[in-house]
Amino acid sequence: MIAPFTTLEDFATLLGDLPAADKSASAAAGARNAVLTKPPGALGRLEDIAIWVAGWQGEAAPVINHPQVIVFAGNHGVVAQGVSAFPAEVTAQMVANFAADGAAINQLCTVAGAMLDVIALELETPTNDFTKEPAMSNEGVISALQIGWEAVSPEADLLVLGEMGIGNTTSAAAIAKALYGGDAAQWAGRGTGVDDAGLARKVEAIAKGVTRQAVSSGLEVLRCLGGREIAAIAGAIARARQERIPVILDGFICTSAAACLQKAAPNALDHCLAGHVSDEQAHALMLEKIGKKPLLNLGLRLGEGSGAALAINIVKAAVACHSGMATFDQAGVSTE
Amino acid sequence: MIAPFTTLEDFATLLGDLPAADKSASAAAGARNAVLTKPPGALGRLEDIAIWVAGWQGEAAPVINHPQVIVFAGNHGVVAQGVSAFPAEVTAQMVANFAADGAAINQLCTVAGAMLDVIALELETPTNDFTKEPAMSNEGVISALQIGWEAVSPEADLLVLGEMGIGNTTSAAAIAKALYGGDAAQWAGRGTGVDDAGLARKVEAIAKGVTRQAVSSGLEVLRCLGGREIAAIAGAIARARQERIPVILDGFICTSAAACLQKAAPNALDHCLAGHVSDEQAHALMLEKIGKKPLLNLGLRLGEGSGAALAINIVKAAVACHSGMATFDQAGVSTE
Repeated sequence: MIAPFTTLEDFATLLGDLPAADKSASAAAGARNAVLTKPPGALGRLEDIAIWVAGWQGEAAPVINHPQVIVFAGNHGVVAQGVSAFPAEVTAQMVANFAADGAAINQLCTVAGAMLDVIALELETPTNDFTKEPAMSNEGVISALQIGWEAVSPEADLLVLGEMGIGNTTSAAAIAKALYGGDAAQWAGRGTGVDDAGLARKVEAIAKGVTRQAVSSGLEVLRCLGGREIAAIAGAIARARQERIPVILDGFICTSAAACLQKAAPNALDHCLAGHVSDEQAHALMLEKIGKKPLLNLGLRLGEGSGAALAINIVKAAVACHSGMATFDQAGVSTE
Repeated sequence: MIAPFTTLEDFATLLGDLPAADKSASAAAGARNAVLTKPPGALGRLEDIAIWVAGWQGEAAPVINHPQVIVFAGNHGVVAQGVSAFPAEVTAQMVANFAADGAAINQLCTVAGAMLDVIALELETPTNDFTKEPAMSNEGVISALQIGWEAVSPEADLLVLGEMGIGNTTSAAAIAKALYGGDAAQWAGRGTGVDDAGLARKVEAIAKGVTRQAVSSGLEVLRCLGGREIAAIAGAIARARQERIPVILDGFICTSAAACLQKAAPNALDHCLAGHVSDEQAHALMLEKIGKKPLLNLGLRLGEGSGAALAINIVKAAVACHSGMATFDQAGVSTE
């Protein structure tokens, strides 16, 4: 589907007019949940997840058969500031590794029964260094948003968004500081494992970028401090909403894309849940800021959509229990 | 395999002579982990899990293809004290529901690709009421341990142990108090949802049972305060160790069985990890006592092996990443 926007204003308008969950389907799912063969509430968060999926699918007994994982890759001008432990060519090398089935996300998609799409965005031309100028032009950010929008399969019934991009935790931290304030140091983590000197350069780059760009609207923050893969994630989250596909958010970078959307439209993330809290230091705080409680906390800090992909089977399990269990009546189980 | 013990003394001897993990396989797995295409440590606990499975399987690149879930069911004399929200006939009704594919654990096994076995232990003859006499005779507890031992498939490469037994959180709480001390109230939770008056009766039954039985050795605690399904879980955990099959522990009741083994032999749970922390109030403390950090925390309190079954795909994912990912050399990815 061709993206129905060609300017940031169009996109903002679209965000202001997003579809909501189907309340009657949620209510029917809640009623079903109450008579399944288990003590009330005994499946904990699985029950909430199933009812939430029911609302987005518009079905009292939803199914998840076609999860899609999309990994967007982009390169970042800010790596010139010496902010990463790995050289920029690793982005393209890892894209080749995804294609060769050699990365963590490939294995995680197999375990989750998910389709994997990998989309590299002009890796040979990094975004601008945001310590000096906006990371992207209007045309540049729109193009990335459109690519993200168009990458979502309308057949998908659950969506995970991942990324690969050397330098992109610096971008995500700058987004967080622009959206939520606070010190640059509070948002800067080790990323792929930068050393102390690199971390100091990263903090400086974040502070300089946010001061230099001085933006506050969610979509301008995305344009000036983001990256193409981050904008593509934002476009894909919006498209999923249009198609009423539930989304599992991944780690720090994915969440920074989501945060820009929420800043632009407060209910923009109603169809998203947080798959995990990563070990990247500021992710927990960012999740607090967007108001999402993570499903998993396993110390991951890889990106690629890995934490969210790991959560796919949790969401599948929630839906399988909800839609597949017998009721007390069906099973002839006494309730008192 | 016929259980190689016919007395509690035999079983204690066996526990004192358990096989250990293969240190050379763990070391080889650690070396492999260090060169996979990801920043060091970026897969968090998944890396530790894969190396741990490698040690038990004796393979640097382990696989998990045949997870087994066994649900043991038993009835408890202590229900005469009015400790549960559900009547005792629900145990047999739920066993029928398992057979008809209608319970949560059936759906969870499907999502996890696990084989499910359900074993009902003399449901028509509850154990003795432990507020009055030991729950089981020597012959009774041995028989249940043997059934658990023999239920484990030697082809399994991962084992989950679940239970169904109206009244069994009371038994598990009594075990915990006998092993670790503390107030009865501290170990007593709502189980399947008992009301305040029922909870008060439960606290009283736990206190009375522990005072009355006055036992301290792990296996005597299991005999006097446990139940057949709890003893069967203990037998299955021991058998898994003999076969070097990693075990994922489930909630409060499963953990109480494991705790009895650990009391009998401090290293008896080295092949076990905690699948989740349940919402049953004292489970977190019990996990602390056995020194295990749970993988999941999703508010489940169902039993049936449900929380551990949900963790199967996490362990599968850990092993799939470890054994399936490319190395930096294979993928031609730069490391600096």
